Amino acid sequence: MAIITLTTDFGVRDHFAGATKGAIYSELPDVTVVDVSHSISPFSIPEAAYIILNAYSSFPKGSIHIIGVDSELHEENKHIAVKLDGHFFICANNGIMSMICAEIAPEKIVEINIHDKIETSFPVLDVFVKVACHIARGGTLEVVGKVIDAIKPIQNLTPFVNDEQSYIIGHVIYIDNYGNVITNIKRTFFEKIQRGRAFKISARNKTFDIIFNKYSDILYHDIVPEKRNIEGRGMVIFNSAGYIEIAVYKSNPETVGSASSLLGLGLMDTITVNFIKE
Amino acid sequence: MAIITLTTDFGVRDHFAGATKGAIYSELPDVTVVDVSHSISPFSIPEAAYIILNAYSSFPKGSIHIIGVDSELHEENKHIAVKLDGHFFICANNGIMSMICAEIAPEKIVEINIHDKIETSFPVLDVFVKVACHIARGGTLEVVGKVIDAIKPIQNLTPFVNDEQSYIIGHVIYIDNYGNVITNIKRTFFEKIQRGRAFKISARNKTFDIIFNKYSDILYHDIVPEKRNIEGRGMVIFNSAGYIEIAVYKSNPETVGSASSLLGLGLMDTITVNFIKE
Amino acid sequence: MAIITLTTDFGVRDHFAGATKGAIYSELPDVTVVDVSHSISPFSIPEAAYIILNAYSSFPKGSIHIIGVDSELHEENKHIAVKLDGHFFICANNGIMSMICAEIAPEKIVEINIHDKIETSFPVLDVFVKVACHIARGGTLEVVGKVIDAIKPIQNLTPFVNDEQSYIIGHVIYIDNYGNVITNIKRTFFEKIQRGRAFKISARNKTFDIIFNKYSDILYHDIVPEKRNIEGRGMVIFNSAGYIEIAVYKSNPETVGSASSLLGLGLMDTITVNFIKE
Repeated sequence: MAIITLTTDFGVRDHFAGATKGAIYSELPDVTVVDVSHSISPFSIPEAAYIILNAYSSFPKGSIHIIGVDSELHEENKHIAVKLDGHFFICANNGIMSMICAEIAPEKIVEINIHDKIETSFPVLDVFVKVACHIARGGTLEVVGKVIDAIKPIQNLTPFVNDEQSYIIGHVIYIDNYGNVITNIKRTFFEKIQRGRAFKISARNKTFDIIFNKYSDILYHDIVPEKRNIEGRGMVIFNSAGYIEIAVYKSNPETVGSASSLLGLGLMDTITVNFIKE
Repeated sequence: MAIITLTTDFGVRDHFAGATKGAIYSELPDVTVVDVSHSISPFSIPEAAYIILNAYSSFPKGSIHIIGVDSELHEENKHIAVKLDGHFFICANNGIMSMICAEIAPEKIVEINIHDKIETSFPVLDVFVKVACHIARGGTLEVVGKVIDAIKPIQNLTPFVNDEQSYIIGHVIYIDNYGNVITNIKRTFFEKIQRGRAFKISARNKTFDIIFNKYSDILYHDIVPEKRNIEGRGMVIFNSAGYIEIAVYKSNPETVGSASSLLGLGLMDTITVNFIKE
Repeated sequence: MAIITLTTDFGVRDHFAGATKGAIYSELPDVTVVDVSHSISPFSIPEAAYIILNAYSSFPKGSIHIIGVDSELHEENKHIAVKLDGHFFICANNGIMSMICAEIAPEKIVEINIHDKIETSFPVLDVFVKVACHIARGGTLEVVGKVIDAIKPIQNLTPFVNDEQSYIIGHVIYIDNYGNVITNIKRTFFEKIQRGRAFKISARNKTFDIIFNKYSDILYHDIVPEKRNIEGRGMVIFNSAGYIEIAVYKSNPETVGSASSLLGLGLMDTITVNFIKE
C-alpha cells in the first residue's frame, strides 16, 4: 500500500494535522501516513518548496506528497496534482512545485476539478485527501483534473551570474533548525561557473575561501591552530541537499548562537561569490 | 486493527510521547498510533477540548482517543472512558469531554477502576494505554470501570444571549497556529439567533459586519478596492470547525502579525454580536 | 516486523526527519517508524541520553533506536551500534549511550565500519538508516562493525556523596516540557544513602523536606492549609523516570511559570541533599 506524506504549515498544536491523518485512514486503513513537517512558516512558499524538494526523493517511488501551504482555492490559486520522478504531489499552484520542477521535468500536471462545488477553508482535508486516496488506489490524474502544461514559477529561484562569469550573486532561501543559512547556489551550478578557479564568498562582513564537504572537516583543516576555538566558528559547506550553506560548527540558535544570528543573515539576504582571476 | 490517537500536553521534546507509543506497540504490534497533538498548553482543558472535538470525527468509527492533559488521578480528578459517536475516549474527568458531549450524547461513560492500587505520576503510560489496548482488543468498558451518568462540565462553554435576543456575548476559546482567534459562538447557534438580521461583530476596537465562508473570499469582496492591501486585514469567518473566528488574511504570528496580536485578543476575551433592528 | 525509533536534534520543521523516515520505508515498507523526539537541543548529549534512557524500555524487545545527535563521523566521533537489554541502539560514540550503559551492561558494542568511503554531512540518512535496516532484517552487528569493549563516558553522570554520607550533591540534567527540573539523583541511589534518615533538599534559596510520589499528592498533604494556593507551589517528587525532580504543581513555563523559571534553576545547577543526624 502506498505512502502518503504531509508537509504543511498547520503547526504541531492544532487539530488540522490530526484531522487530516484521520481522514486518510478513514478512506484507506492500510496506507502509511508520514509527517514530513507541519512547521513550515505560515504561508511560506519558499520554505515549503525547499523542504519538499529535499524530502521527497528519499521516499519510495509511487509515494504521494500532500503539501498544505497557502492552499485555499481561488481564482489565482488553483489546485494541482503533479507526477514527477515517479512521485505524486498535491498542492496549490502557487510556486511550491517550482524548485522541484526546475530540477526534473514533470511527467504530468493536472488542475484539479473535482471540487467545483466545494466551498472550503480546509482544502487539505476536503480536497487533497480525496485526491491522494484516489491516486493511492491506483486512480489516474486525468480523473481528478484536466491536464495543463506548466506550473506557476517563483521568483529569484536561480542566482545571478554576470556575463564575464566573474561573480555569482545568490541569496538566502532557508534557515534550518541549527540556524545554518542555506543559499540558492547549488553545488553543481557553482562548480560549472567556477571551472576550478579560487574564490571568495562574502556574506555580510565575513569572507570565506574554502567550502567543506562536511561540518567536522573544519576540525582537521590547517586554518585551525587550536581545536578548542572551533565551536562557534563560521564556515561554508556544500550541505547534504547540495546547496552552498553558511554554517557555524555545532551551533545552537538558543545558546551559543548560529550562522543566522552571529553573521546577521536572514531570508533573502545576498551572498556573493567572487572568482579570483587566474 | 484499531487506531489509537494521542492528544497530550507532553510537548515534542520529552520522552513521554515516545514512551507512550512504545507501550502501545508493545501490547499491540499491529495497531496504528496517530499523534494528534502533543503541544496542548500544559494543563489547558479548553485547548484540549477544542482540539479533540475537531480532530476525532475525521477518524474511522471505532478509533480510540487517549487525551493526556491534567490526567493525574486524585479524588477530584477520576479517570474515565467514554463511548460516543462510535468513538472511544480515555481521559481524566476534568471537563475535557464537555465540548464533545455538549454536541453529542455519550453512549456510555465509565469511571476507570483498574488502578486502585497503582500510584503513578505518568497515568497515560500506566493506565490509559492499558485501557486503550483493552478496547482495541474488543474489550468492553464495563470490564475496566463502573458506569456513571455524567461527566464534569466546564464553565462558559456556551455564549450568552439576552432575553430580547438583540445581542450575543461570546469569548475566545482558542488561538490557532496562524494566530487566528476562535470564539465559542458556533455557526448553527449564531444563525438560529440571527434569523437573517444584519449584525455588527465587535472585538476590541474593531467591528465587522460580514462573515466569510473561507479566507480568500475577502479577495473578491467589494469592500476591497485594491488587492494589494488585503494581507494583514482583519476579517470574520465561519471556520472549518463551524465556529466564528476572527482572522487576518495570510497572517503569520512571527512576521506580519496575526488576529491575536494585531487586534490584541487573548483567551477568554469577549466578542460581542449586536443584531441590527429590522 | 521490527520497530525503528528516531531521537534527533533535527527539529520539527526541516526535511531531515521526513527524509530519514522516507529512506527507512524505501528499504523496509513494512517496518513501523516511531518518532520519539526530533526536538533535542542541538548537539545536546545529556538531553539525548536522558530521553532515550527513559523512552526505549517501553518499546518491545528487538526495537532499533536511531539517535541522531552530534553524529557526524570524525576521528573522535565514531559510529557505534549497541545491543543492550534486548534493544539495539545506533548513534555516535559521544556519550549518548553512557546513561543507559550505567544502568545495564551492553551485550555487544560494535564500531560501525561500513562507511569507510562515505563522506557525508547527513550520517543518519546515509549510515544509520542502513545499519538499522540491516538489523531489522535480522542481520548481525558483526557484519556492520568491529566489536569494541567500551563506550565513551560522559562526565558528572553520578552525584557526589561525601565519605560520611551526610550529604549528596547532584545537579540538573534535564528540564522538561512543564519546566520541571530533573536532577541526576536516582531514587534508588538516594534511598541507599538515606537509610531512612530525615533530610533537607536545597535548590537555590528553597528547601524541601519531603519527596512526593506523584504531583497531586501535594493536594492532600498537611503542609497545605488551603488548596487554592497549591498551583505555582514548588515541590519535590520521584518522577516517573525514577529521578528526584523539583517541580511546580500545574506549572506552565509560558504563563504561571515553572520550577525552572520560578526557582531560577538551569542545566548543571547543583541540588544538595543534607541528611539530618539521627
